[in-house]
Amino acid sequence: MQLQAPPRRGFFVYARRMESVTELRVRYAETDAMGIVHHATYPVWMELGRSDFLRQLGQSYAAWEARGVRLVVNEIRVRFRNPARYDELVQVRTSLLESGRRRITFGYRIERGGILLAEGESVHLVANSDNRARVLPEDLLALIQRA
Amino acid sequence: MQLQAPPRRGFFVYARRMESVTELRVRYAETDAMGIVHHATYPVWMELGRSDFLRQLGQSYAAWEARGVRLVVNEIRVRFRNPARYDELVQVRTSLLESGRRRITFGYRIERGGILLAEGESVHLVANSDNRARVLPEDLLALIQRA
Amino acid sequence: MQLQAPPRRGFFVYARRMESVTELRVRYAETDAMGIVHHATYPVWMELGRSDFLRQLGQSYAAWEARGVRLVVNEIRVRFRNPARYDELVQVRTSLLESGRRRITFGYRIERGGILLAEGESVHLVANSDNRARVLPEDLLALIQRA
Amino acid sequence: MQLQAPPRRGFFVYARRMESVTELRVRYAETDAMGIVHHATYPVWMELGRSDFLRQLGQSYAAWEARGVRLVVNEIRVRFRNPARYDELVQVRTSLLESGRRRITFGYRIERGGILLAEGESVHLVANSDNRARVLPEDLLALIQRA
Repeated sequence: MQLQAPPRRGFFVYARRMESVTELRVRYAETDAMGIVHHATYPVWMELGRSDFLRQLGQSYAAWEARGVRLVVNEIRVRFRNPARYDELVQVRTSLLESGRRRITFGYRIERGGILLAEGESVHLVANSDNRARVLPEDLLALIQRA
Repeated sequence: MQLQAPPRRGFFVYARRMESVTELRVRYAETDAMGIVHHATYPVWMELGRSDFLRQLGQSYAAWEARGVRLVVNEIRVRFRNPARYDELVQVRTSLLESGRRRITFGYRIERGGILLAEGESVHLVANSDNRARVLPEDLLALIQRA
Repeated sequence: MQLQAPPRRGFFVYARRMESVTELRVRYAETDAMGIVHHATYPVWMELGRSDFLRQLGQSYAAWEARGVRLVVNEIRVRFRNPARYDELVQVRTSLLESGRRRITFGYRIERGGILLAEGESVHLVANSDNRARVLPEDLLALIQRA
Repeated sequence: MQLQAPPRRGFFVYARRMESVTELRVRYAETDAMGIVHHATYPVWMELGRSDFLRQLGQSYAAWEARGVRLVVNEIRVRFRNPARYDELVQVRTSLLESGRRRITFGYRIERGGILLAEGESVHLVANSDNRARVLPEDLLALIQRA
């Protein structure tokens, strides 16, 4: 978890201050016949970033699920800027863009050594283990709103 | 390829008339621990729809690539409405939302027997085999603009 | 479901007579930077074949699961003979190699218009919804042993 | 790269002494509706292990490819012992089982904190950038045979 120094410019406005950084190495299986990472891989990387963000905030998403709290994906957007290739080290920077009782939005910047590869956003609805809408427990709401 | 009778309502405006329908059966590997199809599967299904759309228009995307014409993914958006589950039959309805020399946008409605599962959009830039920007050949532009 | 005329030669001996054929079109997302289908895609195709085999036998695997009967994957083997490429039509021929109360083995031949792409085998243990070992219900055993 | 102290027992005999250890965290996208990691994920993890093994040996597989040397997958086998779940930390232990000019075999033990999850093996043929058979360059052969 790092303080994000200057406000970023780009597709999504990053108003929040906290940001987690997840580093991963591109898998061969993630590339396609164009020789670059297939675009459907990015939502998977965003999910990894989100997972690390919550863990660093204090409670892993696995712990959320064990408590009967799910973040169902309601919408995803990804804007691709530069391709990634096999074996490269990629950083996923995850922030919270919106945090409510029923709806949470994460923002992502995917980079390779400072070069922007993609920007993304995912909107989630809070649900219970049956995938029905519910509100966030108070402690998780407090946790999220501190980010 | 079918005529799309009434204008659809929803997240994306479907101004175009032509639409391809791709039917697929949900794979076990596409589900996740929530018991439903993982959200990163939808961009893969949209790509299948796009592939069938171009084939039905008269020239497969494989033929485009063989001619040195690529549609690099610039942006994707998916909005999830209802979950899909293993073994269900799903229909991907693909339309053209925007068609230019340098930029093409597809729209998707993913359904299960008339029930809307997700809506999506993908924006593509025209590129050559080195992934550099180029314009569409005249015949492909004509083909696309007929859709 | 077809009668399999002459005994096949190859990596696995096909003693059973019944065989299902699943046709699929190679997805772009299934290719890798070598320009061919990534090898980890084949177990997914084998699963599709297995799924169709059971459906054609009379009861879909989704129905098995709803009854609390699972086929947990215990072992997979794939031997690759020829590469597959984007947009090609591929056939998965699935047979039953071994069928017991506790253990079932499927065999697969993956072809493209008669050309052998890969041969595979998957061994499954019968389990209940908690993934604990159990025996097959009599009617499913009878179904399987008829194949 | 570590010295592997006692000879391991199990499905595959590990005669080689060197072993790389790759740690990864299970992705949500890697799970399936059974609540556990889908079996087709394991060949992808084995590939990650192989990639790290070669990097630690002194030359990354990306560098091999840049020199026109590919390891085409000829056969994979995986034997599943215990399931893995979302967010768990998993270790892939990779060894060399066989190393020749034309053919290389890797062995894998996938564990979670000492508990064996799966054992696997992958057989590779040496090929050039056109996927035609070739022999390993002398320096890579020496590198491999030192492992």
